[in-house]
Amino acid sequence: MKKRLAGMLALMTMALTTPGIAQTTPSSEHRIVFHLSTPDTAAYRALTKQLNNVLAVWPSAKLEVVVHNKGIGFMHKDQSRVGAEIQALHQQGVVFAVCENTLKSQKLSRNQMLPQATFVPVGLNEIVLKQEEGWSYIKAGF
Amino acid sequence: MKKRLAGMLALMTMALTTPGIAQTTPSSEHRIVFHLSTPDTAAYRALTKQLNNVLAVWPSAKLEVVVHNKGIGFMHKDQSRVGAEIQALHQQGVVFAVCENTLKSQKLSRNQMLPQATFVPVGLNEIVLKQEEGWSYIKAGF
Amino acid sequence: MKKRLAGMLALMTMALTTPGIAQTTPSSEHRIVFHLSTPDTAAYRALTKQLNNVLAVWPSAKLEVVVHNKGIGFMHKDQSRVGAEIQALHQQGVVFAVCENTLKSQKLSRNQMLPQATFVPVGLNEIVLKQEEGWSYIKAGF
Repeated sequence: MKKRLAGMLALMTMALTTPGIAQTTPSSEHRIVFHLSTPDTAAYRALTKQLNNVLAVWPSAKLEVVVHNKGIGFMHKDQSRVGAEIQALHQQGVVFAVCENTLKSQKLSRNQMLPQATFVPVGLNEIVLKQEEGWSYIKAGF
Repeated sequence: MKKRLAGMLALMTMALTTPGIAQTTPSSEHRIVFHLSTPDTAAYRALTKQLNNVLAVWPSAKLEVVVHNKGIGFMHKDQSRVGAEIQALHQQGVVFAVCENTLKSQKLSRNQMLPQATFVPVGLNEIVLKQEEGWSYIKAGF
Repeated sequence: MKKRLAGMLALMTMALTTPGIAQTTPSSEHRIVFHLSTPDTAAYRALTKQLNNVLAVWPSAKLEVVVHNKGIGFMHKDQSRVGAEIQALHQQGVVFAVCENTLKSQKLSRNQMLPQATFVPVGLNEIVLKQEEGWSYIKAGF
């Protein structure tokens, strides 16, 4: 009997912790991965503003921006015009993940990126992993 | 006892192998949230056509278009060139949700939007809520 | 007994309504649907490169590219500049699904498409079906 209870408890735990549970998700668990691959500075400004808008309503949402390909300028020390916004968002817990494949193909190094950057081997794979964990997906840009 | 074990095993298998809503979803329950943030009129025409294409195959699908940022022109009374299409789609149950944050930042009022508009505080949050409820996501535009 | 049945029923309901594949997905089961609707040749090159990057890390991932609207040039025999890459990716199991609605509206025939093409009635519906089955979604393009 105890074994059965344990089994059912395990099942319930699995069911309850499986992501994408819909309307019952408490606000603290909204999780969004943003896909940024555009070279458009206006889109960069819009994105930082949008991240702030989301956090204004859902202060404890988990937000991650995955930057790859032509989006790399967003996190480039010498090019980014939204460095101050990125710093402020990072302090609020937003993760900025830069694709190392992109760095290689564009012959950039990690230290050319803003200090708020974290690094992932392949940007797209990171986005997929997040979706598999139940995160919502937003493609940034116009 | 064996029967009960078999039953629990079946449940566990189901729990472990059930991804998304899967192939068993009846056609009447297809739910799609479209993300529109582009100022491109050609994209607006394409979107209304696509909504019709989807409904032609899945007449009872639930479709919602979330309009924000540069996509606002799609729902702007004086700018939209697809007002007639939006009216017809609305009559078929398509929801057109306009971001109030966008209205504020562009100093627009609700009554400048087409009468088919509904309003949501933050467009991106609406898109995320839909995904959390299991809706599929399509980023409109080219 | 009734209580147990009720409990199991609740579990079954939960299991059946829980979307998302979660962290337990083995690497061999990564499944990604790419949405391509842009006429941009640079985006086509980037996409084939990205597909290779994903496969380099996840060799047995299931990848499908759904091509519709202005993305049709990607699969057009006389226009595509990435035919060799598409052939190589197809040999690795990548599916290239072309929207037949797009063919009709652009007055193109199936045999004008690269031989690696498969055909779906409505591109967007294909993308939705994949998401409903738990596939991750990536919007291609910049």
